[in-house]
Amino acid sequence: MKTTKKNPKHQSINKISPLAPKSFKAMTPIQGVSIYTYCANLYNYKRLDVLLFLFDEELNIAEVSTQSKTRSITIDWNEKNLKKGKIKALLVNSGNANTFTGKQGKEALNKLTKFIENKFYISSSNIFVASTGVIGEPFPFKKIIKSISHHNEKNKSNWLDAAKAIMTTDTFPKLKEANAIIGGKKIIIKGIAKGSGMIAPNMATMLGFIFTDANIARPVLQSLLKEINEDSFNSITVDGDESTNDTVMLISTNYAKHRIIKNKDDKLLRNFKIQLKNVMVDLAEQIIKDGEGATKLVEVSVVGAQSFRSAKVIARVIAESPLVKTAIYGEDPNWGRVIMAIGKSKENININKLKIKFGANLVASNGSRNLKCKDLDLKKYMKNNRITIAIDLGIGKGDAKIMTCDYSYDYIRINASYKT
Amino acid sequence: MKTTKKNPKHQSINKISPLAPKSFKAMTPIQGVSIYTYCANLYNYKRLDVLLFLFDEELNIAEVSTQSKTRSITIDWNEKNLKKGKIKALLVNSGNANTFTGKQGKEALNKLTKFIENKFYISSSNIFVASTGVIGEPFPFKKIIKSISHHNEKNKSNWLDAAKAIMTTDTFPKLKEANAIIGGKKIIIKGIAKGSGMIAPNMATMLGFIFTDANIARPVLQSLLKEINEDSFNSITVDGDESTNDTVMLISTNYAKHRIIKNKDDKLLRNFKIQLKNVMVDLAEQIIKDGEGATKLVEVSVVGAQSFRSAKVIARVIAESPLVKTAIYGEDPNWGRVIMAIGKSKENININKLKIKFGANLVASNGSRNLKCKDLDLKKYMKNNRITIAIDLGIGKGDAKIMTCDYSYDYIRINASYKT
Repeated sequence: MKTTKKNPKHQSINKISPLAPKSFKAMTPIQGVSIYTYCANLYNYKRLDVLLFLFDEELNIAEVSTQSKTRSITIDWNEKNLKKGKIKALLVNSGNANTFTGKQGKEALNKLTKFIENKFYISSSNIFVASTGVIGEPFPFKKIIKSISHHNEKNKSNWLDAAKAIMTTDTFPKLKEANAIIGGKKIIIKGIAKGSGMIAPNMATMLGFIFTDANIARPVLQSLLKEINEDSFNSITVDGDESTNDTVMLISTNYAKHRIIKNKDDKLLRNFKIQLKNVMVDLAEQIIKDGEGATKLVEVSVVGAQSFRSAKVIARVIAESPLVKTAIYGEDPNWGRVIMAIGKSKENININKLKIKFGANLVASNGSRNLKCKDLDLKKYMKNNRITIAIDLGIGKGDAKIMTCDYSYDYIRINASYKT
Repeated sequence: MKTTKKNPKHQSINKISPLAPKSFKAMTPIQGVSIYTYCANLYNYKRLDVLLFLFDEELNIAEVSTQSKTRSITIDWNEKNLKKGKIKALLVNSGNANTFTGKQGKEALNKLTKFIENKFYISSSNIFVASTGVIGEPFPFKKIIKSISHHNEKNKSNWLDAAKAIMTTDTFPKLKEANAIIGGKKIIIKGIAKGSGMIAPNMATMLGFIFTDANIARPVLQSLLKEINEDSFNSITVDGDESTNDTVMLISTNYAKHRIIKNKDDKLLRNFKIQLKNVMVDLAEQIIKDGEGATKLVEVSVVGAQSFRSAKVIARVIAESPLVKTAIYGEDPNWGRVIMAIGKSKENININKLKIKFGANLVASNGSRNLKCKDLDLKKYMKNNRITIAIDLGIGKGDAKIMTCDYSYDYIRINASYKT
């Protein structure tokens, strides 16, 4: 399972994001976790499009998923299995979301999981699934079964290919690893993710799969995932459009030699939490860096709001405003649009206590613009490819942060092209 | 007050919307309503930018305005005067929104209204104002006072110039009139509006001013405006960004010779309501046709929802989805994105009862796509410049409709250009 082999070319039809990392560090395997990738011909060109994780034992799994009311049948499937929360196989495909596929999609999923059950001797209650790609097209389960039925050692794969197999309109694969310490023992955390907006050839989704060897009870795993997800994958937005398939999983092998953690407030978890957040925030930022047409990474931070909820609503409204996003693309320090966005959030504010900063530049305070702020400094700041917009509402203790990207011509080009 | 004089060229810096009307019908005056327009040099090129309505008597006025928490000081001003609800002068300017202007903006507004009070012998409690343009810049009241201080008969103006004076990034002036019958008497309704998105040289707003000679008590006027506003100006969206200055006023001279209407359910109002809605919906549609970069007018209709509120939320989420809007620009019948938008609304639905039509084409029903719907028919339909997306949720009686436009390259171009 080498990761130093020559990387195949990026598989995307779109040009690589200017914010993409220059190179990818090879990630080593995790004991008990085997990775396989396949080409099921789900696209009209050759690429990896099916990913299968097989685990030596039944592992603990935690999952958070989309709140969408038109969610994929795959989310229903996992919800059922999550009650027990033991995973032995994880099957992921790109190219088709298995969403709004009705009876066909449901039967297709049953047949596909039955196939995995028989082929690898794994109870269907221990099989988890995730799909990403076009909505409403019949789910091509036969192609997927065919690709796996020829399963052999050649399909044994690595993290980089795993990250590539789940790409849709992504222009680069997304991987991240970190080490933590629990009770003096070194702990491994490794994750992959995909996501780039919601698009063509069609609707894509955000998927994230994080693995660790930490020895953590399942309820604790679930509560850690939920908590950190709020500050990572739930704190990013490309276009405000929420997918029908969004899923993040956290899977632990429990092989690490520290005592089992049964309480989410256990002090031994302190460093692990930091490193898990490190991995999840990094993967979330990679998704934003690969946002459709993105040329700038934008951090919107809101402090001093009435509550965390209120801070997050305001940050999100700013981050999702097409007028704010196009201004940033145009390198225009148009803080008037930020004022507009704060106002349309309908959240409680005191206009006279409000402060707005672009980077280190205080542009507005005391209910009007800051006359000391020089236009030239602002214009220069906007040329950076990472922009920070910081709002201090000055009325409470609610803080939140949202990462987003700008809106460029390429967002329109990518999304207006006819599906093929 | 001729309206047949040669129209001055459109004043916008942007190319005229492909959906603009080919010509403008002259609108005749209303007895007791005088229109004046001025050039106060609020732009860096010559254009009408100040509009003053003077009324022979104190007239009834109704108003609805933005819910924004960062609203303009002009909205505060009108709110105070609206308690009495009698108008003798209405002063409107483009070029500056008088929003987030702090102490300067407040004092400027006081000086400006004081000037109008002294010059035209009108109590400041009978003066209403509206501003539209850039946010956060000092309000140029001196320039406006200077332009009006030279007031003479040459400033006497017409509806077309009135509509032009309030344009910001609008590419065409917006006017509409209709006649109604109340108690056998012919009633006049005339309106102007502006709006095109929220933007450059900077943030614009939606303003609408409707006049009638109907004899209607003020509380009835207010309730009619509120009701019909919900189905007109509150049922449109260009980019989902809500302005700090949005205002719609309905002003009646009460000169018509029918008995006064004191009850909003008075049967005499039936035809008037239809015609008032006709005028307001038409003006609202004109704003959408002038949406920044618009190439197609899009009607999103939702029926069979659990409630009116739920129908409107779903319609709005679809109409504001960047993915839906870019697909329409690309003439892509991408109903999967409509499914996504319905899901992200979080409103109650039953996926198996859901029906989606693009024009007359049923694209989805029974929880999956309609295989009888031909791709070729759909592609042909998408070439129209008016697109209807109709959703039947099949679970209740809530109906709502939202008008919007597509997202094109020009939306990005217009909004990314640096303010000058």
